[in-house]
Amino acid sequence: MKLCRFEKEGNIFYGILEGDEISFLAGEPYDGLRTTGEHAGLGEVKLLAPTVPKSIVAVGLNYRKHAEEIGMPLVPEPLIFSKFVSSVINPFEQIVKPDVCKQLDYEAELAIVIGRRCCKVKKEEARDYILGYTCMNDVTARDLQDMTKQWARCKGFDTFSPFGPWVETEVDGDNLHLQAVLNGKVVQDDTTADFIFSTAELVEYISGFMTLYPGDIITTGTPGGIGPMKSGDEIKVVIEGIGELVNYVK
Amino acid sequence: MKLCRFEKEGNIFYGILEGDEISFLAGEPYDGLRTTGEHAGLGEVKLLAPTVPKSIVAVGLNYRKHAEEIGMPLVPEPLIFSKFVSSVINPFEQIVKPDVCKQLDYEAELAIVIGRRCCKVKKEEARDYILGYTCMNDVTARDLQDMTKQWARCKGFDTFSPFGPWVETEVDGDNLHLQAVLNGKVVQDDTTADFIFSTAELVEYISGFMTLYPGDIITTGTPGGIGPMKSGDEIKVVIEGIGELVNYVK
Repeated sequence: MKLCRFEKEGNIFYGILEGDEISFLAGEPYDGLRTTGEHAGLGEVKLLAPTVPKSIVAVGLNYRKHAEEIGMPLVPEPLIFSKFVSSVINPFEQIVKPDVCKQLDYEAELAIVIGRRCCKVKKEEARDYILGYTCMNDVTARDLQDMTKQWARCKGFDTFSPFGPWVETEVDGDNLHLQAVLNGKVVQDDTTADFIFSTAELVEYISGFMTLYPGDIITTGTPGGIGPMKSGDEIKVVIEGIGELVNYVK
Repeated sequence: MKLCRFEKEGNIFYGILEGDEISFLAGEPYDGLRTTGEHAGLGEVKLLAPTVPKSIVAVGLNYRKHAEEIGMPLVPEPLIFSKFVSSVINPFEQIVKPDVCKQLDYEAELAIVIGRRCCKVKKEEARDYILGYTCMNDVTARDLQDMTKQWARCKGFDTFSPFGPWVETEVDGDNLHLQAVLNGKVVQDDTTADFIFSTAELVEYISGFMTLYPGDIITTGTPGGIGPMKSGDEIKVVIEGIGELVNYVK
């Protein structure tokens, strides 16, 4: 099932997407799905980032083959960083290259969407706390990342956290084909089956130190092939069974 | 003026504190202060962290003398990191030492509270975007900080972001005496007049890359004297003209 969030005539709703038709939900999708009986076509609404996270928890290097390629030793624990929620933009919106940034990189990632308050959850129970999965572009000012020890700024500029276009609730997050497509050319191409830490292990590790809330996002790291974008580019994150997140570079 | 947030009989309000009496506000304090006519004594309510931030933006080493003491070169730009909003606790609540943490440190800090949406604001106008100032304890799992490159986890455990007890709107943030007091003994003692980057410069720098929203927090770094806390300790952050933030270690 695909759960989306959208704007129609100035109001914001959640909905269930089937084909090109959205069934409106009453309230948020976390307490059970109650449809209102209203419908709209996908073309009649503006899709929004599918949740309003309190936290975006990001994971560093998490693809085994990529780590080996660049000669990084496998880390014993996930490397955790944070993206400011103020950096979220919607599908089809523009990523703005800051004046101070010389190299603006895409990073295609699978994002885990939390569906229930989640504190000290064991990996065996993790799936019960996951609403589903979506596409994320962990946009990064690469040159600034190399200059500063902490990544909050280089990954936290306004417009650096596009995610969406919706949450798919029924896929296996640990076995999905994932691509970045820049101006129609595949530039990242891997599978989440190559994760060093599985989605359940990430939920266990992260909920072991912080409480996650409905709508929170865990973005799971990017595979090899990261690279720069320039003004006018179209960048897509395409994940099997979920869909395409499309954004443009201003 | 002191602006507080509190719980009374299961409901949450903002208020103006004068002496020991709170005047209730209608709604949030960001759109103008409208009192409802209701009052309560400070002893009749449970004080809460005075805002509900979307982002907690933290600044590394920002005291000149402390940087010189530990032989750190002065940085050309503020070092920015992030604290997860899920780590916020209220005044008088318990800081919980995680099982995986061997050394749990206090860090007394002045926190800037944002009062208006704030994007690319120049330092000359920064004060117009600041609602006021409060006390913050940037609690840190020091041993874990030394083990990982990114600070999101070691500073982001649940309960690691006490702030309050209220927002003082009328002090000069760049000239305040600041102390940490551990079990009645002064362990940090400095003045924000020693800041490397002033409050206005921090607002300019941070709003230059990310949009800040009403209630967001910029915590401005800690002076020398950081050190460990143990179970049963009382830790206070005391700032001249603002007040005392008191918490206990579980």
